[in-house]
Amino acid sequence: MTDTLRVALVGYGFMGAAHSQAWRTAPRVFDLPRAIDMSVIVGRNADAVAASAEKWGWRESATDWRDVVTRDDIDIVDIVTPGHSHDEIAIAALKAGKHVLCEKPLANSVADADRMVDAAHGSGSVAMLGFTYRRVPALSRARDLIAEGRIGTVQQVRAAYRQDWLVDPEAPLSWRLKKDEAGAGALGDIGGHAVDLVQFLTGQTIEKVSGVIETIVKERPVETERVGIAGKGGDEYGEVTVDDLAIFTGRLSGGALAAFEATRFATGRKNELTVEISGDKGAIAFNLEDMNVLRVYDRTADDLDQGFTRVIVTEPGHPYLEGWWPAGHLLGYEHAFSHQVKDLVEAIADGSAPAPTFDEGAQVQRVLEAVEKSSADDARWVAV
Amino acid sequence: MTDTLRVALVGYGFMGAAHSQAWRTAPRVFDLPRAIDMSVIVGRNADAVAASAEKWGWRESATDWRDVVTRDDIDIVDIVTPGHSHDEIAIAALKAGKHVLCEKPLANSVADADRMVDAAHGSGSVAMLGFTYRRVPALSRARDLIAEGRIGTVQQVRAAYRQDWLVDPEAPLSWRLKKDEAGAGALGDIGGHAVDLVQFLTGQTIEKVSGVIETIVKERPVETERVGIAGKGGDEYGEVTVDDLAIFTGRLSGGALAAFEATRFATGRKNELTVEISGDKGAIAFNLEDMNVLRVYDRTADDLDQGFTRVIVTEPGHPYLEGWWPAGHLLGYEHAFSHQVKDLVEAIADGSAPAPTFDEGAQVQRVLEAVEKSSADDARWVAV
Amino acid sequence: MTDTLRVALVGYGFMGAAHSQAWRTAPRVFDLPRAIDMSVIVGRNADAVAASAEKWGWRESATDWRDVVTRDDIDIVDIVTPGHSHDEIAIAALKAGKHVLCEKPLANSVADADRMVDAAHGSGSVAMLGFTYRRVPALSRARDLIAEGRIGTVQQVRAAYRQDWLVDPEAPLSWRLKKDEAGAGALGDIGGHAVDLVQFLTGQTIEKVSGVIETIVKERPVETERVGIAGKGGDEYGEVTVDDLAIFTGRLSGGALAAFEATRFATGRKNELTVEISGDKGAIAFNLEDMNVLRVYDRTADDLDQGFTRVIVTEPGHPYLEGWWPAGHLLGYEHAFSHQVKDLVEAIADGSAPAPTFDEGAQVQRVLEAVEKSSADDARWVAV
Amino acid sequence: MTDTLRVALVGYGFMGAAHSQAWRTAPRVFDLPRAIDMSVIVGRNADAVAASAEKWGWRESATDWRDVVTRDDIDIVDIVTPGHSHDEIAIAALKAGKHVLCEKPLANSVADADRMVDAAHGSGSVAMLGFTYRRVPALSRARDLIAEGRIGTVQQVRAAYRQDWLVDPEAPLSWRLKKDEAGAGALGDIGGHAVDLVQFLTGQTIEKVSGVIETIVKERPVETERVGIAGKGGDEYGEVTVDDLAIFTGRLSGGALAAFEATRFATGRKNELTVEISGDKGAIAFNLEDMNVLRVYDRTADDLDQGFTRVIVTEPGHPYLEGWWPAGHLLGYEHAFSHQVKDLVEAIADGSAPAPTFDEGAQVQRVLEAVEKSSADDARWVAV
Repeated sequence: MTDTLRVALVGYGFMGAAHSQAWRTAPRVFDLPRAIDMSVIVGRNADAVAASAEKWGWRESATDWRDVVTRDDIDIVDIVTPGHSHDEIAIAALKAGKHVLCEKPLANSVADADRMVDAAHGSGSVAMLGFTYRRVPALSRARDLIAEGRIGTVQQVRAAYRQDWLVDPEAPLSWRLKKDEAGAGALGDIGGHAVDLVQFLTGQTIEKVSGVIETIVKERPVETERVGIAGKGGDEYGEVTVDDLAIFTGRLSGGALAAFEATRFATGRKNELTVEISGDKGAIAFNLEDMNVLRVYDRTADDLDQGFTRVIVTEPGHPYLEGWWPAGHLLGYEHAFSHQVKDLVEAIADGSAPAPTFDEGAQVQRVLEAVEKSSADDARWVAV
Repeated sequence: MTDTLRVALVGYGFMGAAHSQAWRTAPRVFDLPRAIDMSVIVGRNADAVAASAEKWGWRESATDWRDVVTRDDIDIVDIVTPGHSHDEIAIAALKAGKHVLCEKPLANSVADADRMVDAAHGSGSVAMLGFTYRRVPALSRARDLIAEGRIGTVQQVRAAYRQDWLVDPEAPLSWRLKKDEAGAGALGDIGGHAVDLVQFLTGQTIEKVSGVIETIVKERPVETERVGIAGKGGDEYGEVTVDDLAIFTGRLSGGALAAFEATRFATGRKNELTVEISGDKGAIAFNLEDMNVLRVYDRTADDLDQGFTRVIVTEPGHPYLEGWWPAGHLLGYEHAFSHQVKDLVEAIADGSAPAPTFDEGAQVQRVLEAVEKSSADDARWVAV
Repeated sequence: MTDTLRVALVGYGFMGAAHSQAWRTAPRVFDLPRAIDMSVIVGRNADAVAASAEKWGWRESATDWRDVVTRDDIDIVDIVTPGHSHDEIAIAALKAGKHVLCEKPLANSVADADRMVDAAHGSGSVAMLGFTYRRVPALSRARDLIAEGRIGTVQQVRAAYRQDWLVDPEAPLSWRLKKDEAGAGALGDIGGHAVDLVQFLTGQTIEKVSGVIETIVKERPVETERVGIAGKGGDEYGEVTVDDLAIFTGRLSGGALAAFEATRFATGRKNELTVEISGDKGAIAFNLEDMNVLRVYDRTADDLDQGFTRVIVTEPGHPYLEGWWPAGHLLGYEHAFSHQVKDLVEAIADGSAPAPTFDEGAQVQRVLEAVEKSSADDARWVAV
Repeated sequence: MTDTLRVALVGYGFMGAAHSQAWRTAPRVFDLPRAIDMSVIVGRNADAVAASAEKWGWRESATDWRDVVTRDDIDIVDIVTPGHSHDEIAIAALKAGKHVLCEKPLANSVADADRMVDAAHGSGSVAMLGFTYRRVPALSRARDLIAEGRIGTVQQVRAAYRQDWLVDPEAPLSWRLKKDEAGAGALGDIGGHAVDLVQFLTGQTIEKVSGVIETIVKERPVETERVGIAGKGGDEYGEVTVDDLAIFTGRLSGGALAAFEATRFATGRKNELTVEISGDKGAIAFNLEDMNVLRVYDRTADDLDQGFTRVIVTEPGHPYLEGWWPAGHLLGYEHAFSHQVKDLVEAIADGSAPAPTFDEGAQVQRVLEAVEKSSADDARWVAV
């Protein structure tokens, strides 16, 4: 391996844009221990991927990931394809001795996920999963506060990820709505974020779940053109094979109950991820629609002074802020991807294992699969 | 019956204060079709109830509700005792030909509630239940908008009632924490409000539920003095026999899923009742911590103009506002009790049946009982 | 004087309703040292005032305030007429040995105000002015915090009272828009509140001002019917003789600058009174549209934890909360009027002088008059 | 000129980082008509500027801007130095036939600004000023709505830019606090943004002003190390020669009054730029602390439905959103710099003059200078 880390990005959709931005930006705002070379971007459509290479600044493009992941001049394989191909690509890359950054979900099934975990364990490489929201500074800060005991013992949890882009019944049947490609719907795509965050913030795992998943609009126009996350549809209709909405309850290893919701039918909510952790000494609350802010409640303060404190997490000293702007100058959605690159590169440089690991990803997958089982079994509790 | 309605109030706790304020205020801010006489307040402790009579403006006090509810000079019996005594008092009052206003919950069990419903049906009296929040103007307005079709078909629902007054493990074992008096804990006391509101707002009933209830702090100091809702405790400890937290999912008669939470352990949330109804044409959102405001989303507006509109529901023309202040002058918690008196008195005057009826109260009780059954049966779906 | 305080209310508009509610309510929620008798309400239109007496619970009505203020069976004269009559009524009442509660503004001119101050000083009675917002619990709490030094030295201030009920050019020419009755427009009616609050909260006086006042809509339909604060207009038009908008800067006695705005043309703002006091150790911020909340900033906290804390001022121990509901149950606009009655009655009982005094009211009037002078003199600084 | 635009950046402080990020990012998220070459970065300290070149991705560094601005292989000179050097650099660059992007303020005096305007007019180049906030999508959208007549005639305006980084009396005397380098303090640095935005949003100019500026902390530790915007200070103290706080009122060309505040002493406000434009048909309100949101009020809606609509300005079709993420994925502070690059490059390609022009910058400078004059002349109105 050279001092420069040479990256191959597999996939070039919305996540490809976000990851490209991060690879390009992280070395410019953080002092990374290694240089980055955006070597090659891979996609099946040669023209489209070549255009993406040109647009996003990758030195070359390629159409076969199998060739790329074994190339000698590649150090990191960054996987942003739909979930059904993660296992094959990641395992091949790990076997070839590459470091792997894999977008969430880790895989579309627990079985696939487990094989990826095995591959990661069997390799000498870094294998990192892209639950990027962990690296939103307000959430990183929340985790630190909870770990320090600032909210005491966690007694209950509430997390919801709510969008509305499927309320329109004519929104087309994109790959995200097909079980064979996406694995799951709202449950997997955004519910997975909520599950990961709760486990990350509390430092606990979800041990059993009871819940229901549901498809509200059962047939949609087959997608004829992919545009953003929603795409465009034609006259033909096809079956939606994933859920639109998931509501479930989890039991954390520490004993607390956690209420979850993941939906693409919350009319008016564009990308609202909320999480609230209530402890016996305090609480934290977060809303992705106000993502630079962490609300912190201190039950140990004088009764007359208690309230949620709205901390704008942009101070020098807050996580990741050393790279950015003066206090009060807000960060946006994509910044956490740069933080992810920073942590990955630092882990590679010092030989540590950056979280979230593939094990953590497989654990989330187990939770989601248990929710599906519960839903199919009259909402009964299912052990993870 | 005279032109003046003569009221007996049974009970004199926190709810007694709120109802007294309403009986005293409603005739002063609304043009009621009947005069009100605050005739008698009833409680077991003669000194205490006499003091309450003096303080709140009741002409006399009494210690035996059985005597009072049959007195010729009483037209309305208003019941604000703990839930376990509702059935006996209400049935006796109805049998005596009195109109009855009964605080929620209707009763502590479905069996009790059903007998109350029978008594109401068998009487020529008005029997009204005190789910007072229906008469917060913003919620009355929300119901009107939904009934007019402004949000289209309801597709999903989210409701939570969250308090934190039991996070303190030394908060005493008041009657609200004893199953034999209160019937249920967070589930019945505040979860009932959430259930009623969802049914009220959508015009639908919850047909089945899956959920879990839980007692987080299992033993508390026995209450030695009743102060407000929390009271004071001593050295002796006793078992908490109701739930602290309930998380459940309901299936509405129209097909939509509804996620519910009721808790007294949401650290930092004092009295936060939130409800959001998402439809295919729009949505409404409400938060009792900002109770004069209704947020309304219109999906039929131009894409570039869509957003939640923060309507301050204090305009002339908004429900109940004819009695109060100029636009923008906020109403508080107790105003809805005056609205309740207004609607009750008008219903008595014109012989109509004001909602919520006892039937509706029994239906809520069925939902809550089904949640308890589900919780005891591995969270399985239970028909209401 | 008897143990019972016998009250005469002079005036019966919107403020008459609010004061009646307070006289009726305060003895029922607080433990007052004296009983209250709502003896007589006074207005020029015999039928209308009789109807108000009946509606609001006054024992009798009368049409000539001169007769009433000298009656032996009256202890307190409460004045809620337009500002131009305050001086005559208050002075007569004080001369007759009555206690006086006078709605703001104290008077329409400094000269009138000064005569009222003299009358108050020369009497043995209590003379109290109705800047009621001081008694919104969040603002009372803010004053306490500032007095305790929690925000350190005040360095700058920002206060605005913004409404929009005159944006409609057809809103009629009510008495509030006529200089001879109302004295001033937005400046006097609502700007006076902002001035009083800043002086109250900081414990300082405004010593000089520079500003501008302006009438945006110069002619309006003459009012043909008084309805709420806005009324109804006819075909005839008349000149608006007061300001619609005032923007001014004040210099506080402690040296800090304060920016003020008072407007009835802030489209969409119904009754938004905001005040923010910034000190070298912290800050407080308040918004009347969220009137149960005080936001408090503590600059002495760890940098990473700083933020505005949203305190819901409804805890036991917060000002005036002993009389009301459990924590988190919100108060509304009219509650502060009951607090005013409480403090007035307690002051009468113990012989103290309740704030705001007439002196304070005259000081506010001096500030407002200085703003008018400044506006007429090219916005130059004018000493108060 | 080649097809590729070759850029020289003069200056390498906080603004240098932001502009570098924009030059690097804009071509990757937008389809620009020209390629960008980040050719050279210029600064007086050879080592420091070389490090910045390496860090931010400039091909080379240089220490003398005079050499650079005349180089044949440079097409655009981007100036991010302190204000006192803007005129000399910009005029030289324009004379050399370069396009110029100049950070705000245009200059430290009206005289300097006017010479820059002359130079711009006399050149065939594009001269653009960096009032970047115009290109925050919510503010671009606001301008469009106002231009379309959505809020009707503007009747009053309120704008404030509030920070608190100088509340600490030990915050050092950086160049931003010295008149000879910065030109002005809060007034020029952030008040200029407020003035520009009001003129931009309303399409009107400020024709006269009355106001006051003030230095609250008059001596500070001389800066020994430049770190972020605040720096570090030593034992020696020096005089602060600019204002800390400015409060002023402007008269717009359309007749409306506008209240302004610019301060670095608003304890707890990190970077809060708020602007509200009130018209007879509606209003818009914006807060930079929630910068993806525009609040829009429609007075033409039914009275019962009116309220501020919280539009999240991240929809496809909203300004500049074609380059970014799906709806609801937030943008941050630096994105507007990329929008600025996009518009500049497009203007160069099609030969148009992008706003804000130098003329607009000189107009803002005239407003600020008039405020200083007013403050020195007893707050009298001063024509711009």
